[in-house]
Amino acid sequence: MSKSKSSKTRPRRRAGNDGTLFLYGRHTVLAALANPSRRSRRVLAARDLPDSAIVELESARGGGARPHPRIERVERSDLSALLGKDARHQGLALETRALTPVPLEALIAPRTARAIDGRTGPLIALDQVTDPRNIGAVFRSAAAFGALGVLLQSRHAPAETGALAQAASGGLEHVPRLEVTNLARALDQLKTAGWWVVGLAEEATQSLGDFEQETRTVIVLGAEGAGLRRLTREACDLLVRLPTVPAMPSLNVSNAAAVALYALHQGDGQPQSN
Amino acid sequence: MSKSKSSKTRPRRRAGNDGTLFLYGRHTVLAALANPSRRSRRVLAARDLPDSAIVELESARGGGARPHPRIERVERSDLSALLGKDARHQGLALETRALTPVPLEALIAPRTARAIDGRTGPLIALDQVTDPRNIGAVFRSAAAFGALGVLLQSRHAPAETGALAQAASGGLEHVPRLEVTNLARALDQLKTAGWWVVGLAEEATQSLGDFEQETRTVIVLGAEGAGLRRLTREACDLLVRLPTVPAMPSLNVSNAAAVALYALHQGDGQPQSN
Repeated sequence: MSKSKSSKTRPRRRAGNDGTLFLYGRHTVLAALANPSRRSRRVLAARDLPDSAIVELESARGGGARPHPRIERVERSDLSALLGKDARHQGLALETRALTPVPLEALIAPRTARAIDGRTGPLIALDQVTDPRNIGAVFRSAAAFGALGVLLQSRHAPAETGALAQAASGGLEHVPRLEVTNLARALDQLKTAGWWVVGLAEEATQSLGDFEQETRTVIVLGAEGAGLRRLTREACDLLVRLPTVPAMPSLNVSNAAAVALYALHQGDGQPQSN
Repeated sequence: MSKSKSSKTRPRRRAGNDGTLFLYGRHTVLAALANPSRRSRRVLAARDLPDSAIVELESARGGGARPHPRIERVERSDLSALLGKDARHQGLALETRALTPVPLEALIAPRTARAIDGRTGPLIALDQVTDPRNIGAVFRSAAAFGALGVLLQSRHAPAETGALAQAASGGLEHVPRLEVTNLARALDQLKTAGWWVVGLAEEATQSLGDFEQETRTVIVLGAEGAGLRRLTREACDLLVRLPTVPAMPSLNVSNAAAVALYALHQGDGQPQSN
């Protein structure tokens, strides 16, 4: 009897095999709730959260997908047990489905592109970057600087997870994730469609600051250590480097992406105070 | 007998309580070995590493502190057991002492400053940032853009660890770590000494891109979520914001630091191809 009660009140240890996952952390959960494209099952909210936090959840949920996910109150310790000890959940988790990646065609045929509504920033392409925290931080910076999307190679890209989403701090809800099976071929397709493909590489002679953004630009960043693969590099119109000192030529990939996004943002004549 | 042999050939599980720690990863170990200020005891190199890797170690060690640390060959599995399963050690670890923080006075009295040999970049100050990976990435970007140092508040700053050093990817060896007990007071001291103290804050009205770097600039960044504390904010000459979209006003702190370092680097008239 007590056993059945326990299994009823405690959240399940794992989401099912139906593509569901747990997002956590206040900022991440609120952004996911407010995203009309995000299908979620339920919010798990720690019993010790103040009423104002529940009001905030309900308000965010109001702008999101229907049917609205229900809000369940749980013990904070159960959230920690569910999500793992490293998850800074702040008393909040959301059982949800991973967002569906946007097809590349949505960018190549912009008239039909729901994905790029009003954005003028570049597209960020990641060549075999696998660290979820780095990819999450790239989504966060991409969202902050109005990037069109983040393009990943499907067989190397980590799935949407709670850790990746927390590093993105809501950025997953704002910036489309595009997945392709072959990155070099996708870059070729983009070039054919009039995009300008710019790779970031230590050995480039031209500096990022000298590059003037074209209307449609893809910035390609390689994995830590390995950099851009040969075929990826060959698919670029241009390689540029960051103005780093010789002894420390490379940045963390999310730092490099943030710098590139900022540099292009500065260069495109947009007002800086929007 | 076999027990004593095992304890002899296996590296110890933990460094001693004498301020030693293990750094790991090829790039991090090579940079630490080449740093003449870094006192190290021994290199642990996996037996399966090629001879060229050992030649590389010996070459790096030649430019570093004397006496040179010895190189011990160990099983790769013992390295993993020693460093933990999440450590991407690449078959290399270095038992070493943490670097001694540089006193603030070394910057304030620049004539006596060994710390700032030839650097013209800003100083980065972190207000209660505690995540080792973020702080490591800040050191990496600070090194890449020639920053003068990274200023931390001692009671909140994480110690030098293998994880922090790996995120810094050698940056710890190039950029001085400064520690103070009271950050707001340290910023006041710097202002009195003629430094320009610029805080990054979402609510600032002036944009980072509009700020022209003074000869000696401190960029102050706050912790994730909390931002700058009130006293820190009040100690700034000026607050500036990144040109982010309203829905996503903030970046990961290491991303924000990289953007600020790049922006100041671009603005100070330095050649970009150094």
